[in-house]
Amino acid sequence: NVALQERDGCKSLYAVQAERLDQAERSVLISCNSRTNEKKFLKFLSTHGNIKKYFFYESYGTHAVVEFANRESVASLFEITTIPSISHESLVPFKSRLLTLRNLGLDNLPNQLSGQQSHSQTTIPINQLIQNLSGEESMDQQIISLTKAFQLTEENSRLRFLVCSLLKDIAAAFFPECTIKPFGSSVNGFGKLGCDLDMFLDLDGISGRDTKLLKLGMSLEYQMKMANSERAVTQSILTVIGECVDQFGPGCVGVQKILNARCPLVRFAHQPSGFQCDLTANNRVAMKSTELLYLYGELDPRVRYLVFTVRCWARAQGITSSIPGAWISNFSLTVMVLFFLQKRSPPIIPTVDQLRDLAGPADKSVIEGNDCTFVSDFSKIQLQSNTETLEQLLCEFFEFYSTFAFKRMSINIRKGKEQNKPEVSPLHIQNPFETTLNISKNVNATQLDRFVAVCQESSWLVQQNKKPTPSAGIKGNAFAPWGLSSLLLPSQVEGIKRKGKK
Amino acid sequence: NVALQERDGCKSLYAVQAERLDQAERSVLISCNSRTNEKKFLKFLSTHGNIKKYFFYESYGTHAVVEFANRESVASLFEITTIPSISHESLVPFKSRLLTLRNLGLDNLPNQLSGQQSHSQTTIPINQLIQNLSGEESMDQQIISLTKAFQLTEENSRLRFLVCSLLKDIAAAFFPECTIKPFGSSVNGFGKLGCDLDMFLDLDGISGRDTKLLKLGMSLEYQMKMANSERAVTQSILTVIGECVDQFGPGCVGVQKILNARCPLVRFAHQPSGFQCDLTANNRVAMKSTELLYLYGELDPRVRYLVFTVRCWARAQGITSSIPGAWISNFSLTVMVLFFLQKRSPPIIPTVDQLRDLAGPADKSVIEGNDCTFVSDFSKIQLQSNTETLEQLLCEFFEFYSTFAFKRMSINIRKGKEQNKPEVSPLHIQNPFETTLNISKNVNATQLDRFVAVCQESSWLVQQNKKPTPSAGIKGNAFAPWGLSSLLLPSQVEGIKRKGKK
Ligand SMILES: Nc1nc2c(ncn2[C@@H]2O[C@H](COP(=O)(O)OP(=O)(O)OP(=O)(O)O)[C@@H](O)[C@H]2O)c(=O)[nH]1
Ligand SMILES: Nc1nc2c(ncn2[C@@H]2O[C@H](COP(=O)(O)OP(=O)(O)OP(=O)(O)O)[C@@H](O)[C@H]2O)c(=O)[nH]1
Ligand SMILES: [Mg+2]
Ligand SMILES: [Mg+2]
Repeated sequence: NVALQERDGCKSLYAVQAERLDQAERSVLISCNSRTNEKKFLKFLSTHGNIKKYFFYESYGTHAVVEFANRESVASLFEITTIPSISHESLVPFKSRLLTLRNLGLDNLPNQLSGQQSHSQTTIPINQLIQNLSGEESMDQQIISLTKAFQLTEENSRLRFLVCSLLKDIAAAFFPECTIKPFGSSVNGFGKLGCDLDMFLDLDGISGRDTKLLKLGMSLEYQMKMANSERAVTQSILTVIGECVDQFGPGCVGVQKILNARCPLVRFAHQPSGFQCDLTANNRVAMKSTELLYLYGELDPRVRYLVFTVRCWARAQGITSSIPGAWISNFSLTVMVLFFLQKRSPPIIPTVDQLRDLAGPADKSVIEGNDCTFVSDFSKIQLQSNTETLEQLLCEFFEFYSTFAFKRMSINIRKGKEQNKPEVSPLHIQNPFETTLNISKNVNATQLDRFVAVCQESSWLVQQNKKPTPSAGIKGNAFAPWGLSSLLLPSQVEGIKRKGKK
Repeated sequence: NVALQERDGCKSLYAVQAERLDQAERSVLISCNSRTNEKKFLKFLSTHGNIKKYFFYESYGTHAVVEFANRESVASLFEITTIPSISHESLVPFKSRLLTLRNLGLDNLPNQLSGQQSHSQTTIPINQLIQNLSGEESMDQQIISLTKAFQLTEENSRLRFLVCSLLKDIAAAFFPECTIKPFGSSVNGFGKLGCDLDMFLDLDGISGRDTKLLKLGMSLEYQMKMANSERAVTQSILTVIGECVDQFGPGCVGVQKILNARCPLVRFAHQPSGFQCDLTANNRVAMKSTELLYLYGELDPRVRYLVFTVRCWARAQGITSSIPGAWISNFSLTVMVLFFLQKRSPPIIPTVDQLRDLAGPADKSVIEGNDCTFVSDFSKIQLQSNTETLEQLLCEFFEFYSTFAFKRMSINIRKGKEQNKPEVSPLHIQNPFETTLNISKNVNATQLDRFVAVCQESSWLVQQNKKPTPSAGIKGNAFAPWGLSSLLLPSQVEGIKRKGKK
């Protein structure tokens, strides 16, 4: 059983994050030149300490991420790092771990970092993907290939944690005990290269000492500014950090402070990594959703393959978008895939209620009155032996949502069963932790109709476009789109919509 | 000679500041209760380290400034300091050295800190001062008394440096090498209790390493945000610090960011000290003016007495104001007193040019192209033996400016001689360092006329209101205003103005 094999050695997201954050703390980000001599570069840096890991990547220029074995090496590096001497007077003298390598005598050198060593942080163009997939052996292979082509690389993941860590240095100026953690698709296992970087400022460490040490009947308290609500505090903190990032943050551009949103955030682009960043604070429920999604992705490899494929398909079909609107979000879509997998017979993944029932005492988590408890020890989870193939599952997914009773029913991954809708939104997907909320209340009827129509179309398409026979294939049309490839071509849904169901 | 006696052991302002800033770094500010038991309080704090100095003061409640012998004691104190537990959720968890003492079982205690131990940070009311001065023996004594009553106390001066140090903690979050130094009347020796606290963020420490250490032809630079000008950098930095003070700074209220002024600044009130604060950055010329004024004040005690008296007189007569406008500033007024003292025969103080000529190589200072060099070693300065009394000098001051050729002449303390006006402002006082600027260009003709009229009136008044003879005094009018007291009563200048010169 593939599922069980791959589950060995699973770590909870919490453990993975702690390790990654620690690596990031010991790392620096250096903009360099594609003609940099790699060996000399390493020799130069090694004089400041052992290098544990490094890599080069391309993103509007060549950059290097260098992880030292010890944090002290970064301090040692800083000792020889200078303030740029050009237009010295008009620089904001804020020092960070984002550095530039100056390299004498480069002009005559050939490009020394070949493409092989320097990792790309973007996906291949969709057209090329479609062509590549057409060359695969089976639809299962296509799905696996698509996932491999789009999923976050080890390097990209490290870079995400490093950007969090750089931002943490800014926040830690005021809140030394804080951490900044990535959440959402950067870490839930379903992130595509190029997805945004959702971050969350965690101030929980600060509440540390709560009990007063009384000596002689006296105790001391910090004087602190009071706000009207916890939300106002979050807004205050994000105002300041947003201002810092805007005025001081090297490589941070297009800073927007979106403080009146349901979840206040600071949005900016981090140029040296190419990431679009969203920083929130006090967002612990979102972190729990992320952990839950991660857990589901780790339970059975088919979960991740299917989510990837559906996300990718939805984006190609214009069902989802990179900007928010009345369409389905990737988060909703992921929950829809999970729900579908819970509804298989036998189910491929357990319900949230089942995961809660398996939780130990240490797993208990109640956030703002919401029960967010679920098991963290993966080995306690018993899976049923469903042997459906990826091809079968994808076809069934389209079929499932082509005929789902969206009008009456709510999607509920807590129970693994549709429930009567508690309210009239076109699409109702219960928030697994804040159970009175609908995570897809933004979706309007038009967008839901489009989703259903594209499911119907795709269900039909995938039947029509089976893999061509080898003989047919050889005759000049070897890479004609078939299977998954055909699903990624632009939709004809506006045309077929009126045709009704196949 | 009093002047020479008091000059022994003079320190330059630079040395005084370094010592005060160091004390402030080791100090905490604690809001407590007037019923706090002083002995217990000290015992409680002493468990964290040696206390070098402490005092209590009143400002909308009782506060204590506690200076430890070592910085580590502050860290030790922080270990037992808690976050306030009331409305825990809506506090901005920024920790600073502004603390609150919680004190159990106070309710039944009498007030334990008597007024004697708890220092006031405000001056006595002007009416009471007038009465007190009337009881003095001579006008010289009145002038000395006024200065003693109004000048900054040791405690107030410490408190000013402590507020700078608290603010530095915020700025040091981003610029670890920065300092925040007081300038203007807080440190130039002419400050009155209650005067504003002018501060200046000094980032010069940051430019530290300028030379590249090349190894293997490589070197590293920090990536830093670029601005269009040095002014834009200053604005950026003050924007962020202003936002931090506003959102995080405990006790900081009414924050205004005045960034488009000639000298961009952040203005706020610091409640626990009662100071109105102005924070500027990159304001090194103002620091030099402050050092110059301090030096003049240290050279001969009559300088300080006279400046104090003239400042106080001008405020009582409505010639100066606590808000800026078309009237004469305290800074201009001080320079006018200095100029007057340079014009005595023999001169009481040297000219700026003379001070520059005495400067050693280490004193050389050129700021933005302006020569700000002057001698720092006080012992090199030879004074002439002028023996005029304070009474004589004050009377002569009024006489001097009653008849000064403001229309044609500019006041110039660099030369110690009036010069032809280079431009048409009603009042022209050359900026001693930025010599093309007029420090009183804000003053309009009406305000200058009022100044001259009040000088004339005061010159006349002081002749009229000599000290009453002892016999006359005893008959019920012992404290009738005379001498300096009479000069502090509200002016009748609007009436006498038409009368012309006496
Ligand atoms: N409870 C709740 N959480 C949400 C909602 N939208 C987003 N989230 C959480 O916030 C995370 C980040 O949101 P997004 O950036 O929109 O989604 P994502 O999963 O990162 O997917 P991408 O589209 O790849 O960025 C999600 O993974 C969820 O954990 C919502 O409507 N309700
Ligand atoms: N060059 C220049 N410096 C000025 C000017 N105004 C103020 N300063 C400097 O800034 C310092 C602080 O200004 P103020 O707060 O207005 O004056 P002050 O001397 O502190 O006197 P107070 O009225 O007691 O605050 C002064 O001491 C001068 O060093 C000006 O017009 N030109
Ligand atoms: Mg995201
Ligand atoms: Mg001032």
